[in-house]
Amino acid sequence: MTTMALIEKTFDLKLIAAHLEGLEETIISKLIDRAQFSLNDAVYQKGKSGFNNADDQSLFDLRLRYMEEIDAKFGRFTSPEERPFGRELPAMQRTGQAAVTGLAISDFDAINMTAEVLPVYHQLVPQICEAGDDGQYGSAVEHDVFALQAIARRIHFGALYVSESKYRSNPKAYDELVAQNDMDGLMALLTRADVEARILDRVAGKVAHLQKEINPNVRRKISPDVVLEFYKTHLIPLTKEGEIKYFLNRK
Amino acid sequence: MTTMALIEKTFDLKLIAAHLEGLEETIISKLIDRAQFSLNDAVYQKGKSGFNNADDQSLFDLRLRYMEEIDAKFGRFTSPEERPFGRELPAMQRTGQAAVTGLAISDFDAINMTAEVLPVYHQLVPQICEAGDDGQYGSAVEHDVFALQAIARRIHFGALYVSESKYRSNPKAYDELVAQNDMDGLMALLTRADVEARILDRVAGKVAHLQKEINPNVRRKISPDVVLEFYKTHLIPLTKEGEIKYFLNRK
Repeated sequence: MTTMALIEKTFDLKLIAAHLEGLEETIISKLIDRAQFSLNDAVYQKGKSGFNNADDQSLFDLRLRYMEEIDAKFGRFTSPEERPFGRELPAMQRTGQAAVTGLAISDFDAINMTAEVLPVYHQLVPQICEAGDDGQYGSAVEHDVFALQAIARRIHFGALYVSESKYRSNPKAYDELVAQNDMDGLMALLTRADVEARILDRVAGKVAHLQKEINPNVRRKISPDVVLEFYKTHLIPLTKEGEIKYFLNRK
Repeated sequence: MTTMALIEKTFDLKLIAAHLEGLEETIISKLIDRAQFSLNDAVYQKGKSGFNNADDQSLFDLRLRYMEEIDAKFGRFTSPEERPFGRELPAMQRTGQAAVTGLAISDFDAINMTAEVLPVYHQLVPQICEAGDDGQYGSAVEHDVFALQAIARRIHFGALYVSESKYRSNPKAYDELVAQNDMDGLMALLTRADVEARILDRVAGKVAHLQKEINPNVRRKISPDVVLEFYKTHLIPLTKEGEIKYFLNRK
């Protein structure tokens, strides 16, 4: 049985936390990949892509859209934690059964945090990339999409699986708070400050470890503090917002 | 000035070697990513993708083709080291100047080793992935394409930049061997056994280092020996074959 199958069967919080740890490594390595290219601000400016009939889109917008169209055909968005940034995407073309997830929710897009993820990602990029323009526009947006998808995956996985696990360990308390529409109460009950502190420590440590053997003459490093701050200010809060949405939509 | 701009100006072998080291890290991390999914042999079987009108293609073939079509539009193949696996790809749509590479070759596809890379990649996958089927077909082929592109990029970068650098340090000897069409002589002159041994050591060490903090309960590890063997038997020999092609096509 794979880890995901085991998670979906047991909702064991330890397994879920360990999976989040794996997703964290992916985020860090995608951010390091993106940082190998300059900011290239032109890729975020609408109408500057050079693509025909795309005056209202940036090169970044186009790359994200093109990738999500392919990904939709290959079935990425059948996974609960893979929520698309775009709408009206093509149907899945490959064969495959619907996943049995164990989540108590039918429409995964009720917990779609991508509209919140996009602006905080755009704030992060100038903090990890060198300012200026190296002409590597295609590579910059390619890696943007990978990093963005990795961050969104981590947030949605947390919002869905962590909250279902918490619910199962204390259903009565969550049911009551949901019935009273008590957002502050939900936030207080789901928050575990000790776990958050441990995640922040571990993330910063991992950014340092993964870059320890990097040759700084050829590979740019990113700052552990920047990633820690991103987790603290955006990634963890957005995950918790998503958790509350999950509780409110749970049936 | 970026590292690539500096490499293209100086062809300094130390800089080139350091860049190869960076590409090596990318290969390792993409192989680790792929290994998180089972082999899923069905994705390599033609006619089993579920896509319409694709009886002669596997899900892997389709993913590679779809990705290269997008990548072509975004200009990936304007980089000398990014050689496509497919033919008759769409034109680049974004704006961008042709790269000034310093390479003494006009048609980069004269050094296209993808037909050799594809079968050796297919031999590698069962050595890093768990046997069997976890149903994660979309993810398996997504990561296949990333790993495959990383390997091909390393081979082509070596074939193009390492050989131009070697040529510049000893033009007369290379010119003579090319004039005599002396393949064995070229192979002997370009081979540096000490460098190869160092690369193999470093690769195995890096596979171990990058996985040291992996939690084995949630993330599958790959064997340093398998990657070392792949470098020794395929990646380095294919790079050297590419180098010979470069010398023969140099003008």
